[in-house]
Amino acid sequence: MRRRIGILTAGGDCPGLNACIRGVARAAYELFDAEIVGIAGGYGGLIDGQYQEMSKRDFSGILTRGGTILGTSRTPYRDMRVIGTDNVDKVAAMKDNYKWLRLDCLVTLGGNGTHKTANLLSEEGLNVIGLPKTIDNDIWMTDVTFGFQTAVDIATEVIDRLHTTADSHGRVMVVELMGNKAGWLTLEAGIAGGADVVLLPEIPYDINKVIAAVEARGRNKKSFSIIAVAEGAMSQEEASMKKKERVNPNPYKTVAHRIAEQVQEKTGLECRAVVPGHIQRGGSPCPYDRVLSTRLGVRAAELIRDGKYGVTVGIHGDEVVDNPLKEVAGKTKFVPADHQLIRTARNIGIVFGD
Amino acid sequence: MRRRIGILTAGGDCPGLNACIRGVARAAYELFDAEIVGIAGGYGGLIDGQYQEMSKRDFSGILTRGGTILGTSRTPYRDMRVIGTDNVDKVAAMKDNYKWLRLDCLVTLGGNGTHKTANLLSEEGLNVIGLPKTIDNDIWMTDVTFGFQTAVDIATEVIDRLHTTADSHGRVMVVELMGNKAGWLTLEAGIAGGADVVLLPEIPYDINKVIAAVEARGRNKKSFSIIAVAEGAMSQEEASMKKKERVNPNPYKTVAHRIAEQVQEKTGLECRAVVPGHIQRGGSPCPYDRVLSTRLGVRAAELIRDGKYGVTVGIHGDEVVDNPLKEVAGKTKFVPADHQLIRTARNIGIVFGD
Amino acid sequence: MRRRIGILTAGGDCPGLNACIRGVARAAYELFDAEIVGIAGGYGGLIDGQYQEMSKRDFSGILTRGGTILGTSRTPYRDMRVIGTDNVDKVAAMKDNYKWLRLDCLVTLGGNGTHKTANLLSEEGLNVIGLPKTIDNDIWMTDVTFGFQTAVDIATEVIDRLHTTADSHGRVMVVELMGNKAGWLTLEAGIAGGADVVLLPEIPYDINKVIAAVEARGRNKKSFSIIAVAEGAMSQEEASMKKKERVNPNPYKTVAHRIAEQVQEKTGLECRAVVPGHIQRGGSPCPYDRVLSTRLGVRAAELIRDGKYGVTVGIHGDEVVDNPLKEVAGKTKFVPADHQLIRTARNIGIVFGD
Amino acid sequence: MRRRIGILTAGGDCPGLNACIRGVARAAYELFDAEIVGIAGGYGGLIDGQYQEMSKRDFSGILTRGGTILGTSRTPYRDMRVIGTDNVDKVAAMKDNYKWLRLDCLVTLGGNGTHKTANLLSEEGLNVIGLPKTIDNDIWMTDVTFGFQTAVDIATEVIDRLHTTADSHGRVMVVELMGNKAGWLTLEAGIAGGADVVLLPEIPYDINKVIAAVEARGRNKKSFSIIAVAEGAMSQEEASMKKKERVNPNPYKTVAHRIAEQVQEKTGLECRAVVPGHIQRGGSPCPYDRVLSTRLGVRAAELIRDGKYGVTVGIHGDEVVDNPLKEVAGKTKFVPADHQLIRTARNIGIVFGD
Repeated sequence: MRRRIGILTAGGDCPGLNACIRGVARAAYELFDAEIVGIAGGYGGLIDGQYQEMSKRDFSGILTRGGTILGTSRTPYRDMRVIGTDNVDKVAAMKDNYKWLRLDCLVTLGGNGTHKTANLLSEEGLNVIGLPKTIDNDIWMTDVTFGFQTAVDIATEVIDRLHTTADSHGRVMVVELMGNKAGWLTLEAGIAGGADVVLLPEIPYDINKVIAAVEARGRNKKSFSIIAVAEGAMSQEEASMKKKERVNPNPYKTVAHRIAEQVQEKTGLECRAVVPGHIQRGGSPCPYDRVLSTRLGVRAAELIRDGKYGVTVGIHGDEVVDNPLKEVAGKTKFVPADHQLIRTARNIGIVFGD
Repeated sequence: MRRRIGILTAGGDCPGLNACIRGVARAAYELFDAEIVGIAGGYGGLIDGQYQEMSKRDFSGILTRGGTILGTSRTPYRDMRVIGTDNVDKVAAMKDNYKWLRLDCLVTLGGNGTHKTANLLSEEGLNVIGLPKTIDNDIWMTDVTFGFQTAVDIATEVIDRLHTTADSHGRVMVVELMGNKAGWLTLEAGIAGGADVVLLPEIPYDINKVIAAVEARGRNKKSFSIIAVAEGAMSQEEASMKKKERVNPNPYKTVAHRIAEQVQEKTGLECRAVVPGHIQRGGSPCPYDRVLSTRLGVRAAELIRDGKYGVTVGIHGDEVVDNPLKEVAGKTKFVPADHQLIRTARNIGIVFGD
Repeated sequence: MRRRIGILTAGGDCPGLNACIRGVARAAYELFDAEIVGIAGGYGGLIDGQYQEMSKRDFSGILTRGGTILGTSRTPYRDMRVIGTDNVDKVAAMKDNYKWLRLDCLVTLGGNGTHKTANLLSEEGLNVIGLPKTIDNDIWMTDVTFGFQTAVDIATEVIDRLHTTADSHGRVMVVELMGNKAGWLTLEAGIAGGADVVLLPEIPYDINKVIAAVEARGRNKKSFSIIAVAEGAMSQEEASMKKKERVNPNPYKTVAHRIAEQVQEKTGLECRAVVPGHIQRGGSPCPYDRVLSTRLGVRAAELIRDGKYGVTVGIHGDEVVDNPLKEVAGKTKFVPADHQLIRTARNIGIVFGD
Repeated sequence: MRRRIGILTAGGDCPGLNACIRGVARAAYELFDAEIVGIAGGYGGLIDGQYQEMSKRDFSGILTRGGTILGTSRTPYRDMRVIGTDNVDKVAAMKDNYKWLRLDCLVTLGGNGTHKTANLLSEEGLNVIGLPKTIDNDIWMTDVTFGFQTAVDIATEVIDRLHTTADSHGRVMVVELMGNKAGWLTLEAGIAGGADVVLLPEIPYDINKVIAAVEARGRNKKSFSIIAVAEGAMSQEEASMKKKERVNPNPYKTVAHRIAEQVQEKTGLECRAVVPGHIQRGGSPCPYDRVLSTRLGVRAAELIRDGKYGVTVGIHGDEVVDNPLKEVAGKTKFVPADHQLIRTARNIGIVFGD
């Protein structure tokens, strides 16, 4: 059996992309007569026809390497829609290039935006398999996405380091973690790092409750506090506004800075904001992510061997599972307000500000 | 509601014990009027009545600390059985001390041996809750145990480091990882570290197939190989012997040394054995284990609040679950030879020597 | 011989403070009959008389712990000067408390500000020994200060992680590292992290040369660049202004943001600024700093044994050295523009923008 | 100016080799018209004429990579001497190939053995520059060698991890670190890791003093101890024997195993030996080593530019220095028994067993 596989990585980069690509490739070479075409720079490369014929050698030594050997991009599906006939052209271009490259299938590694486009292409008749990559862990029907655990590790180390500073100076440290819509990363890193207050996009906060939590710790002779806040967290007032009303007059003053300012003003305690930013998505994948992304990538190759397309691979419990692309695309796995992990966090005294 | 809780850690130490203890304690203080009694040195401490009244302060700052603040021991259940009436005395002693300490329940953190004793005490009428701690990941009815992921992280880092040495010198490195009966740690670290050959207790190996795999790599111009072997791995000859026949004439020459010697002799390649040993179970728990052990510990406190005993807590998928102690005790979760992860590994070319 | 030692940590917290305190204490207990008084919260604690009698036990297990068990503060010497007679009072208060506590000597761990005050107290007749702590490495007459190497390690890991993101997206990443006056941290982390452009407070930059360097890499088919900038770096225009003219209209838009904006505007490349902030000074000291701070701390105890005061301890080559406090105080060790390390960096193609 | 440079790495692999190679290459390309010839597999490659023409691209992305891109070997100088006329042939072969490759100079990265051969070739009239690579830190006339600090970091992490196990179980952990002749690694890692007993090749130990130290800790209610022992450490009896009398009847039972056995027998405490082995020399160089090896490598290129040969580069204090090859070759920098660092260690209570 011979199969010609196109593979692309789209969206923000993320630890585990190369490990996953390697998983697809090594299993494909092992399981059947595979030819692999690397599409450069995400969907943009498929549209423009930028690609590279790959060989076994290209996938050697990349298991531990961060980033993606294929490059990535953020050419969003949304833009395609918006630009009308142009959009039709982009999709048409992808279909044309798929054929022109004589692909038997396309494997896409990406997050929610990537899955939306993957599903569109699948509906247009291409053989597509999705792989759930994102540090946000917000993809539907999988316990976890690859890249997430590495981001939790990095974010937790950040909180660990801030702990000693907070403790030595009796300060309030406000650390802003990635997660615009979904708060999984902040929630898990907050628990792992021993944060006192955790603010998520899904649970709008009342600043007075945050301040009360900080002050309550002072009464217990703990002179410092750690507040972990997702970049997309909002106060209850902001949450009640319409989106266009929520204009930040100073884009460099992010939510962590605003909270630090408010808490300092009310409590008189020294507050500091820290925004570690892109370091949360870079570097070598942690072993958990190496195993996970290898498993998912290998499953993609097995699906190709079996001619099973239109699915995205996920993990549930100890098992890799196949999910229909059309059920995964277009959804976001938010943190449910009553999630067991939220309850766990509340039960050890973490305050969510609600 | 007032509850007096005894808590003990038994068996080998393991990252996440303190995080789990903290989870139990903080949730207990949060959910009800808790008194916590730390039992020193595992079941031995319950037998001898060594204990300490704990307070909130004792559980502060221990989330990230390795080892166990309570001490541990390996006083095995097996010994109790063996020593006849003495055994009865030991169990009786534990029951007496449980009463004498006026405990409402006992929380035990440990592996399979610990669970066996926990179940025995439960059958004797004590209120017992188990928590699954082991770097071996061999406890029944939970996807994963706490301590396991940290051990995988450490073992993977070991393999990563050996990779560069192997590569620079064109050597075969044989690394022996913990796991006497169950091979989970070697399997996951082997995949995460990019090992070429993985030898597990569950899959007896043929040394000729190991040698063939090493030689095949030579033909592909890869002059080095990494062999990850569990301490309990056996050749097919050894596996066919009775246990008492499998006598190692030199206890300092472990399986990794023997394999290195055999491979070197047959291939002529430089082989080196590395046995990292106890470092695999020490140090601060990784973020994954901090979250997991917190979740499990908090669940134990919730169960105490609800008066639900005779269970051990586990995780399945994204959810913490309660399992009957009597179904978990006395079993070992081996790696099934047809496990999806084994298949994954084979599909990327990993050789198991069978 | 009996000696009563006061010990305090002042200024920003820094990895290695506890290791150094432990070095002083363990050697003091070993070498003579020592009593140790911990002064809380830096010089402020000496002024207010906040202290604690310490015992051997207090110094156990702190070798690897970040921050300072004594607390620190930033009560600056400068303020004392400014507030006139009040100043006299503060110094008088410190002298009074020194006597009231019956101290034989005072050991101060801190940076340049701390050394200034230490020297003042020494000139006022107190027995003072200084220890050079700062992540900035800007203390006179020592090759290196403790805390510096740990900060370099953290900052380098930050750059390593940004590398993969920059590479995958073809971006310019601008990372802002600590160092308001002295650029040692940015210089070493820049070299260790493989930065392409390094901007230091000591070498005002021309933004056009920065842009030219980024564009030159584009011509060499390297589509990404890493710019490491010290928080105190300045353009040549800013450097030529008087201090009060250099007003930043938006304190949240720091130098990294401004450079990213300028480079993006001129080159059209995607630029991102990352400001890791306080994580550079937190967490467990690296082994280098543990050894260094132990050596320096032990030397302080040896000096007390020998009755040698008015000195600060440093390291030169492989040897710990004693430097007169009065020669160290009031100076800042800037990076000389012709330093060998600068030349080294230029010789591997690093651009300083001058 | 045009220069054709041969470069080789010899001896055991070591973190920082690639960073140093990169330093030589980037500076050479920057400073003059350089051609670089990579000699494969150490001196063996020079003897056999195995080489590769290198280009700029080959040195990209290797700063952080462990091992050596050139391969290494342990073809020792000693062997050459031994095999008489053959030896002359080997040296002659190296000289011939040097000419045949039209080299202007040869840069050798290695330890003491490498330096001996480098000096021999220099005396034979070749233009040679040495670079001091070894995790043992035993090269003459340099404060420190590259690779050493990374090894200290790894060894310290090992001790840190064993600490928690030792503490939880009340055990004595004996960890055997690399260093056959020189004890620097064990000494620094021992101090950094908080070891209680440190045994070095340079200070023969009395096992009774080791046992006394362990027992003394028991009296102070510290039930655990950490013993760091260099692989080349010897008891006073062994040290007094002739070399050939010191036969180890069981090569798998190394010094750590023997000490653990003896201490356990005498004290009745549980003792465990851990031999981390080759992990101490693998993996990515730490930032300290990246800076150091870059500095040294760049200096080699500067020397080539200046036509200054017959030297090896070292570091003293904050400055890179040039040392005559003939003064460095043939010597080993042992730990002097009265070294300041030894005194420091004794002053915090570390026992050397003498």
